[in-house]
Amino acid sequence: MTLFTVGPVEMDAETRQLGGQALPYFRTAEFSNKVLELEANLKALLGTAASSKVALLTASGTAGMEAAVMNVFTDKDRVIVVNGGGFGARFSEMLAVQGVPYTELKLAFGEVLTAAHFDAFEGGGYTGLLVNLHETTTGQLYPIELISRFAKSAGLTLVVDAISTFLADPYYMDEWGIDVSIVSSHKGLALPPAISAVVVNEKTWLERVRRAAPPCLYFRLADYFDNIRRGQTPYTPAVGVLLQMHQRLLRLRETGLPALLDRVGGLAEDFRRRLRGLPNFRLPDYPLSNALTPVICLNQNAQEVFRRALAEASLVLTPAGGEMADFLLRVGHLGELQSADNERLIQFLDSFATS
Amino acid sequence: MTLFTVGPVEMDAETRQLGGQALPYFRTAEFSNKVLELEANLKALLGTAASSKVALLTASGTAGMEAAVMNVFTDKDRVIVVNGGGFGARFSEMLAVQGVPYTELKLAFGEVLTAAHFDAFEGGGYTGLLVNLHETTTGQLYPIELISRFAKSAGLTLVVDAISTFLADPYYMDEWGIDVSIVSSHKGLALPPAISAVVVNEKTWLERVRRAAPPCLYFRLADYFDNIRRGQTPYTPAVGVLLQMHQRLLRLRETGLPALLDRVGGLAEDFRRRLRGLPNFRLPDYPLSNALTPVICLNQNAQEVFRRALAEASLVLTPAGGEMADFLLRVGHLGELQSADNERLIQFLDSFATS
Repeated sequence: MTLFTVGPVEMDAETRQLGGQALPYFRTAEFSNKVLELEANLKALLGTAASSKVALLTASGTAGMEAAVMNVFTDKDRVIVVNGGGFGARFSEMLAVQGVPYTELKLAFGEVLTAAHFDAFEGGGYTGLLVNLHETTTGQLYPIELISRFAKSAGLTLVVDAISTFLADPYYMDEWGIDVSIVSSHKGLALPPAISAVVVNEKTWLERVRRAAPPCLYFRLADYFDNIRRGQTPYTPAVGVLLQMHQRLLRLRETGLPALLDRVGGLAEDFRRRLRGLPNFRLPDYPLSNALTPVICLNQNAQEVFRRALAEASLVLTPAGGEMADFLLRVGHLGELQSADNERLIQFLDSFATS
Repeated sequence: MTLFTVGPVEMDAETRQLGGQALPYFRTAEFSNKVLELEANLKALLGTAASSKVALLTASGTAGMEAAVMNVFTDKDRVIVVNGGGFGARFSEMLAVQGVPYTELKLAFGEVLTAAHFDAFEGGGYTGLLVNLHETTTGQLYPIELISRFAKSAGLTLVVDAISTFLADPYYMDEWGIDVSIVSSHKGLALPPAISAVVVNEKTWLERVRRAAPPCLYFRLADYFDNIRRGQTPYTPAVGVLLQMHQRLLRLRETGLPALLDRVGGLAEDFRRRLRGLPNFRLPDYPLSNALTPVICLNQNAQEVFRRALAEASLVLTPAGGEMADFLLRVGHLGELQSADNERLIQFLDSFATS
């Protein structure tokens, strides 16, 4: 079984080996030291100052998104949501649940986000912007320079779901003026799912999160920020995944971000180059993340291709949902994949040319 | 390192081995089938009907408690909280966050819950009762027959945090008239922390949870109940821990509940018998769960005993918090412990007799 999914993804031997070990008790100095190291390395890889604050939530990425919404915005805000797919729609749903006023910047499937989209929002009295920088359901990577410029000029608090772009594409939280970043353990970090991190810069902590009264104890970020000063979490964390995350972040800092991005970007480029040679599949025209390649199926049902890839070749593609389910497949490039894996997948897809 | 903690606890070889394996993609029929088996076995071990509903949350036990509070009660309710320790206090805090009116049945440290405590609440117009059946911070096991009788006579919705009593003490959800049970992966199940389950009987689903509008998408139980019908979760779950949970529940059903409870109860009894021979330690007088033994330190500081046990004997006890930190230690009996482990711990504690 080879995972071309976008989470969980293929894990390396060291991560798997750590997953097979006995778990330690976590309210100890030894564990605290690892959490503090993890925190420092995560900030460095995100490109944010030591003064930023990290919450390590035991929960899926959706929980990280929702914790950010609950702790950053209130009913006094007016928020713009970039909604170009399932995760954009999820942000809107969360804002609705919290009673935070919002307007969607809605993109149809295939529509590219441009500067013109933001013109409509100029001078509209907005206070915040929520965006899934890589909208994982379509594979579109939005232009951060554009988003960042608009957010700065309008004085918006910028919250970025970086779940499937972090460690796949360049990401510079402070340089890009991002106030809050959300990441998850099972995408670019190539760990098991269970941990999401919400990283908040000092300004947003002081002006917003510190005063927040979220309607949920478990997602009160202030408690996580308070506990991490001593290397702890307020509630029992997914101890094993945190230890894997500690080790993985050490390794990634050794490797260095450029080498890592080269690797993921190289795999994505290699796959796309090969795919262009196949008559029955097409790439969309919008900008893509290195994390995954959306593949439009021209002459066959995408769900059928997914099922046959799994059954006949043990290749696990990522099916799409909703209206895109019948024509869109997604091919992930995260985790321990190799060019040879791309080759096997292309060979399999090529079999559809004549079938 | 030997864990006498109450989560994480010593895991068996099979669980660890599964933790070291590559993770599969989870939106497949194979994974769904395992989740459906897991669900059926969990209901059977909890003693609840097939019509009860199971939510598998990727989150700590606290999240399970809070999801129950959010989805079962509203500001139209009047809830009694048994508060005899840290987890009782946590239920109260959650009710306060939700704006649910509540009254505490407050127990001082060492105070035994009796029928007289409930007399004060008769005819008070209450609609619900929240209890941590085993209050893990003190080790007191509350009398479920008493609680159950009162809840039934007063027509209360009974929500039980069974996190540290399930698979340690007898538990019969339906027979005891429990409407909602909360369990967690890293206690009696002896799995890594990451998954909590909220199990709701059909009546409470129809009358309460179905109509709930919790202020948090991630904790909307209706979405979990809807997804589990096809063996799935609404958001990416802790895939590895669910697979370990599936396997562990299969094994526990083979072993059978009586044999499992005999084992945990036997370890607890063995430890308590030996401890009674030590002059510097004492057991409290209240009823105890098999899950752990609270140990009152008479002539030494409990935190110091915890530190020395860890440093000198690699034995990990569970320290207490707050006002009890200086005199109370907790010794867990969950997971893969043996009588020989008790012997080593008793030998270590005995060294305090002469020091």
